[in-house]
Amino acid sequence: MKIVIVGASGTIGKKVAEALREKHEVVTAGRSSGDVRLDISSVASIESFYKELGKFDAVVSIAGEAHMAPIKDIKDVDFRKGIDNKLMGQVNLVLVGQHYINPTGSFTLTSGTLSGDPIKMGVNLSTVNGAINSFVIGAAVDLENGIRINAVSPGVVEDSPEYFDAFPGHIPVAMDKVVAAYVKSVLGAGTGQVIAVH
Amino acid sequence: MKIVIVGASGTIGKKVAEALREKHEVVTAGRSSGDVRLDISSVASIESFYKELGKFDAVVSIAGEAHMAPIKDIKDVDFRKGIDNKLMGQVNLVLVGQHYINPTGSFTLTSGTLSGDPIKMGVNLSTVNGAINSFVIGAAVDLENGIRINAVSPGVVEDSPEYFDAFPGHIPVAMDKVVAAYVKSVLGAGTGQVIAVH
Ligand SMILES: NC(=O)c1ccc[n+]([C@@H]2O[C@H](COP(=O)([O-])OP(=O)(O)OC[C@H]3O[C@@H](n4cnc5c(N)ncnc54)[C@H](OP(=O)(O)O)[C@@H]3O)[C@@H](O)[C@H]2O)c1
Ligand SMILES: NC(=O)c1ccc[n+]([C@@H]2O[C@H](COP(=O)([O-])OP(=O)(O)OC[C@H]3O[C@@H](n4cnc5c(N)ncnc54)[C@H](OP(=O)(O)O)[C@@H]3O)[C@@H](O)[C@H]2O)c1
Repeated sequence: MKIVIVGASGTIGKKVAEALREKHEVVTAGRSSGDVRLDISSVASIESFYKELGKFDAVVSIAGEAHMAPIKDIKDVDFRKGIDNKLMGQVNLVLVGQHYINPTGSFTLTSGTLSGDPIKMGVNLSTVNGAINSFVIGAAVDLENGIRINAVSPGVVEDSPEYFDAFPGHIPVAMDKVVAAYVKSVLGAGTGQVIAVH
Repeated sequence: MKIVIVGASGTIGKKVAEALREKHEVVTAGRSSGDVRLDISSVASIESFYKELGKFDAVVSIAGEAHMAPIKDIKDVDFRKGIDNKLMGQVNLVLVGQHYINPTGSFTLTSGTLSGDPIKMGVNLSTVNGAINSFVIGAAVDLENGIRINAVSPGVVEDSPEYFDAFPGHIPVAMDKVVAAYVKSVLGAGTGQVIAVH
């Protein structure tokens, strides 16, 4: 299976790449890292990315940023950061990629626990994560040719101690469990699933 | 209490306005209907709306459109319709409105059942509804001065038979129950709640 990992140099992405590489052809991708380069916040960049890539069986997206700030300081332009990057970046990986992916292929996107379990200053990320979860639910019933789509929704992972202070009382999630969720989405049978890891 | 209803001339909005008008001052709003005019898809319009409105205790938003189409025909620009209108329209009602609303006031937004219970051609609406639900969850922990925020998530309502064919097997929801959800959000005590009505 030819599996593309967007964000393969990241904290989570590099572990998922390691796990999938054992038995599959993995193509890594990122803005400034990886076998193929793209910026998910640009539709034009996503289009040339897929043209360069050729046929493939799975896209795993483990990338995307949002804006952290108290709601009282957030304006439309700030809120659009998460919308244009983590949300529309991942949505466009699917909207464009559905026309390039092999039949019975799969898309796996990344959301996160803040959709339902909020923190201070996290409203942009909560919103975007909830949007991604419902995007895969809505997309799964409409994609053709047996294409599957799921989201992995991790809690803060043990390998990201820099986030612990912002997530008081959240129990860091073992990276093995997070990796297993991506493996399940790509190699398993489910579609329209939000695979929560906490 | 001075309660502003955006979308007060709509199928749901006019019933909610009727119910709240019994004991409260209701100000109606819409693009081409209502006491005060605004287009939620424009931040500038929302800003002048709040300037014109003066002090108030509650905003109820029962407005917002998205794009219905099979995912294979959807491009970034189509998907942005729901993002810019139903999602960012309602988000901006809060981001701007938080600076005008009275202490202990409330915001009530509208999502819908498609966030978790999808239909064909509904992926844009699913995404936007999931985003709104998680927005109120994230915003509730951050809003100051006792300001509350909830979402009402209705199933297809009995007064909207034009949607029944698109929602096969969905049992239309009684309008009384939908109205009660808005009343609970505005006059009740909850915050960060997604009030599902089905
Ligand atoms: N870490 C956690 O605890 C945690 C928990 C829940 C959810 N998440 C979510 O999981 C995702 C990954 O998190 P992480 O901590 O692993 O991130 P990270 O270490 O910052 O890595 C991000 C990866 O994505 C790539 N990337 C960033 N922006 C990109 C863009 N615009 N286009 C293409 N590639 C891009 C980066 O490579 P380049 O710099 O080369 O582009 C890098 O490979 C994020 O969406 C995050 O919200 C993380
Ligand atoms: N009807 C259902 O079965 C159902 C079920 C679940 C969720 N919902 C959601 O509930 C909301 C209302 O649905 P509805 O069926 O009552 O809608 P509707 O009958 O079409 O009414 C929409 C209302 O919103 C106003 N409006 C529309 N666009 C606006 C804008 N850009 N700025 C300001 N006001 C605007 C309209 O007035 P003007 O034309 O004067 O602007 C009208 O008062 C929608 O978001 C819908 O997705 C509906």
